[in-house]
Amino acid sequence: MVMSRTHHISQQFDKELEDIRSKVMTMGGLVEDSLSQVLEALARTDMELAERIASSDYKVNEMEVDIDGECTAILLRRQPAAGDLRLVLAVSKIITDLERVGDEVKKVARIVARLATSGGQDSYYVGILAMGHHVRRMLRAALDAFARMDSHAALEVAQEDPEVDKELEAIMRQLITYMMEDPRSIRGVLDAVLAARAFERIGDHADNICESAIFLVEGKDVRHVALEDLRQQLARGRE
Amino acid sequence: MVMSRTHHISQQFDKELEDIRSKVMTMGGLVEDSLSQVLEALARTDMELAERIASSDYKVNEMEVDIDGECTAILLRRQPAAGDLRLVLAVSKIITDLERVGDEVKKVARIVARLATSGGQDSYYVGILAMGHHVRRMLRAALDAFARMDSHAALEVAQEDPEVDKELEAIMRQLITYMMEDPRSIRGVLDAVLAARAFERIGDHADNICESAIFLVEGKDVRHVALEDLRQQLARGRE
Repeated sequence: MVMSRTHHISQQFDKELEDIRSKVMTMGGLVEDSLSQVLEALARTDMELAERIASSDYKVNEMEVDIDGECTAILLRRQPAAGDLRLVLAVSKIITDLERVGDEVKKVARIVARLATSGGQDSYYVGILAMGHHVRRMLRAALDAFARMDSHAALEVAQEDPEVDKELEAIMRQLITYMMEDPRSIRGVLDAVLAARAFERIGDHADNICESAIFLVEGKDVRHVALEDLRQQLARGRE
Repeated sequence: MVMSRTHHISQQFDKELEDIRSKVMTMGGLVEDSLSQVLEALARTDMELAERIASSDYKVNEMEVDIDGECTAILLRRQPAAGDLRLVLAVSKIITDLERVGDEVKKVARIVARLATSGGQDSYYVGILAMGHHVRRMLRAALDAFARMDSHAALEVAQEDPEVDKELEAIMRQLITYMMEDPRSIRGVLDAVLAARAFERIGDHADNICESAIFLVEGKDVRHVALEDLRQQLARGRE
């Protein structure tokens, strides 16, 4: 990975920063993979795959603890200045979001396993699968924006979050109709509701990762800033 | 607040640390209040109160940005050593959890507002109210454990999380029965499902705050450590 960052007198310090950065990308890759896999398991109602995903969550958890420990060590030993400090803080927040994405993936994996056992209707899941692929692309784009330190790309991803909310609304309306039409379907459809909510939250985490990327590049805390204001702020920064 | 912490050569630095610590408690108090209020609004199906809660979320968001900015400033200017660094890092994580609790409270407030409009059955909410009060007590105890730097108290709170999961399971079974008995109730009961899930996540955040408190006191990252192992670790630390 080529970085347009200033070099430190200590080459060792550069290596440490590069190390946490590349570990975040490895952790991100792991989470992305498990998200892709759970979508595959859902599409095929593949119980074996679902169970494998649910039981491999520990790897992501271990990486979170490992990377967070390195961040603390860097803060202690190196007392990083502005840009480097922001990198460490952004990494520390991003891994929390990645770990939570892992938790949501695990929830969906368990739902898929139940679906396989109950032989449930997978017609409920057409819209949810599309939404799942949408948030998967968002997560990948968010991690890319972080890796390339591209705040404008990050903003573009963040702009997709309201679309996910709209997808969720449409899915919820559909699922309520299913339940009303056939009360025996309620238990199964309720699992679909929870799966849809899990994907929504993955979209929220992708959004948070974008905010961390923008904080890293621009040095601004953009949480709770309206998208339109944010677009204007970044546009002014470009002039 | 009397602190059993070593004093720094710089009194100003002590003041800064005390400041973020007390601001976390203020933010925590704000979040606790809104949680108590939303439970009250739910108990009385009070739309006006619910709307007031939903629209006051911004205060918590502002505090998060404010405190996080102070944490970054301290890291930059003071290059804190071990214990102080842990305080800053713990604060930074706790305010993220508090902000998310605020988000969940807001979701419940919106459900209460809908419930008031639809004149929905509040009998669905008996178990959910009890669960809500449970996680409210957990949140308060978690913040107390942080304020008093008491890792054993924090562990006790963390041990309650499985109980909340059991409460949720019982509530879900009950709600599914309601839906099956009367399909016209589905839309309303689905809101109850989402409210129950929101309280569950508030319990998770209280749990995270306990982990941050234990990290602060013990210098150990205890996320993803089984409760039994944790109890043994802390017991050994006491010998």
